[in-house]
Amino acid sequence: MQSLAFYQQLLEPLLPGLLGIRLTELDQKRVVGELFVRPDLCTAGGILHGGAYMAFADTLGAIGTILNLPQGARTTTTDSSTKFIGPAKVNTTVIGESIAVHRGRTTMVWQTTVRSAEGKTCALVTQTQLVLDAQ
Amino acid sequence: MQSLAFYQQLLEPLLPGLLGIRLTELDQKRVVGELFVRPDLCTAGGILHGGAYMAFADTLGAIGTILNLPQGARTTTTDSSTKFIGPAKVNTTVIGESIAVHRGRTTMVWQTTVRSAEGKTCALVTQTQLVLDAQ
Amino acid sequence: MQSLAFYQQLLEPLLPGLLGIRLTELDQKRVVGELFVRPDLCTAGGILHGGAYMAFADTLGAIGTILNLPQGARTTTTDSSTKFIGPAKVNTTVIGESIAVHRGRTTMVWQTTVRSAEGKTCALVTQTQLVLDAQ
Amino acid sequence: MQSLAFYQQLLEPLLPGLLGIRLTELDQKRVVGELFVRPDLCTAGGILHGGAYMAFADTLGAIGTILNLPQGARTTTTDSSTKFIGPAKVNTTVIGESIAVHRGRTTMVWQTTVRSAEGKTCALVTQTQLVLDAQ
Repeated sequence: MQSLAFYQQLLEPLLPGLLGIRLTELDQKRVVGELFVRPDLCTAGGILHGGAYMAFADTLGAIGTILNLPQGARTTTTDSSTKFIGPAKVNTTVIGESIAVHRGRTTMVWQTTVRSAEGKTCALVTQTQLVLDAQ
Repeated sequence: MQSLAFYQQLLEPLLPGLLGIRLTELDQKRVVGELFVRPDLCTAGGILHGGAYMAFADTLGAIGTILNLPQGARTTTTDSSTKFIGPAKVNTTVIGESIAVHRGRTTMVWQTTVRSAEGKTCALVTQTQLVLDAQ
Repeated sequence: MQSLAFYQQLLEPLLPGLLGIRLTELDQKRVVGELFVRPDLCTAGGILHGGAYMAFADTLGAIGTILNLPQGARTTTTDSSTKFIGPAKVNTTVIGESIAVHRGRTTMVWQTTVRSAEGKTCALVTQTQLVLDAQ
Repeated sequence: MQSLAFYQQLLEPLLPGLLGIRLTELDQKRVVGELFVRPDLCTAGGILHGGAYMAFADTLGAIGTILNLPQGARTTTTDSSTKFIGPAKVNTTVIGESIAVHRGRTTMVWQTTVRSAEGKTCALVTQTQLVLDAQ
């Protein structure tokens, strides 16, 4: 397994880097990250845009899956379902915690809870990752 | 109903502006937009990041809902479900077409199909918007 | 491809038979069925129970997938997402129409619209079917 | 709050009664039930039909919501998303545990895990319930 710094660096030139997603904890059952709610991540009204939550969760769950892939295998998200529960205000930080619900040979299911700095649940994202053999 | 340029300008300082989402058609039953697949919207492998599809769709469906709101009402996405179907390559353009499935007093349901420039379906996003009374 | 009567008979001893699901049209891109809203398919208030919609759609989408499977392959639903849009009253008939959104080698995506006898949309169900090789 | 026996009796003539859903624990944050995997709840291959899981979860989450409704209010499911994770075999019993993720004035979110008798996760269902004022 590569280090947290390795994955953070991988993300930098990609969408997670554009959004400012920072990985903070990584293991094969749980991935945690932070996202600062910049004004340009918001929707009207100064709250975090739904798309930012979903991108945040998709990133964490995909990395969790990668940590569990057999040598040479790849993964793609086939499905993501989000419940939006409460708002996160501009200039605060949200924490995303992604937990492995299922780690199978063909699919993995990860669920990410995004919470405000005060610990209130903002969004719950459940995603299915397909495990693809090396080509 | 405000003009397309009005909504485009509203989006510019927000997440849709950061991603480069451009509105191209707007009416109360259908909203269409474009997104150029910049390298910094991608995931590893040079394909559009799942989070970018979801942010794109969330933006289109929310605008569609806003076009149907009674005076003074607001909306929030309560749920979004995405099926990822095919990849969109870096430096191509994807088209998102959001169609009203249901426009009720309490909830609206919009479904967005994101297609590649060649017309292949890349993602299908269905979202529920809650209609909130003016406070 | 087997006949509609073949699949109907297959369903009879299973959950679709218990609920009274009747297949009415079948081809590789579209499967249609009917369900009579018996009192024992309802929830309190004399309207079709959410679970009945989801079972109805799951049945149609799975059959659609089976019609497209390579010889010896099997399928399982990995994900199903439902938007409930309007009620269906007891002692009416609902029609479910399931359309292939994607028919790939690894996954298929089917979307089912359940409508009342008057053609009003009651529910929209999108499901992913995994294609499994013969064991 | 009414007793467990009250709700069980309410369910008997409805879809949950047809399927054999039995409530076993009830409080405002958690509802638990059991379902015996009868042959007529299965799909081909002698495993519990996807629709049965979804009906089971929908029942538990709706009852959980009802336990939290203000006097005179009603509820309807607006959205349900299911990940199917593992099979449950005919003639075994599955346990469904539904937990309140969010209990707001306008919406509630309940998540149900359906497990086999041995404790393996079979399905994860997340649903949004809309709270409707008394009419």
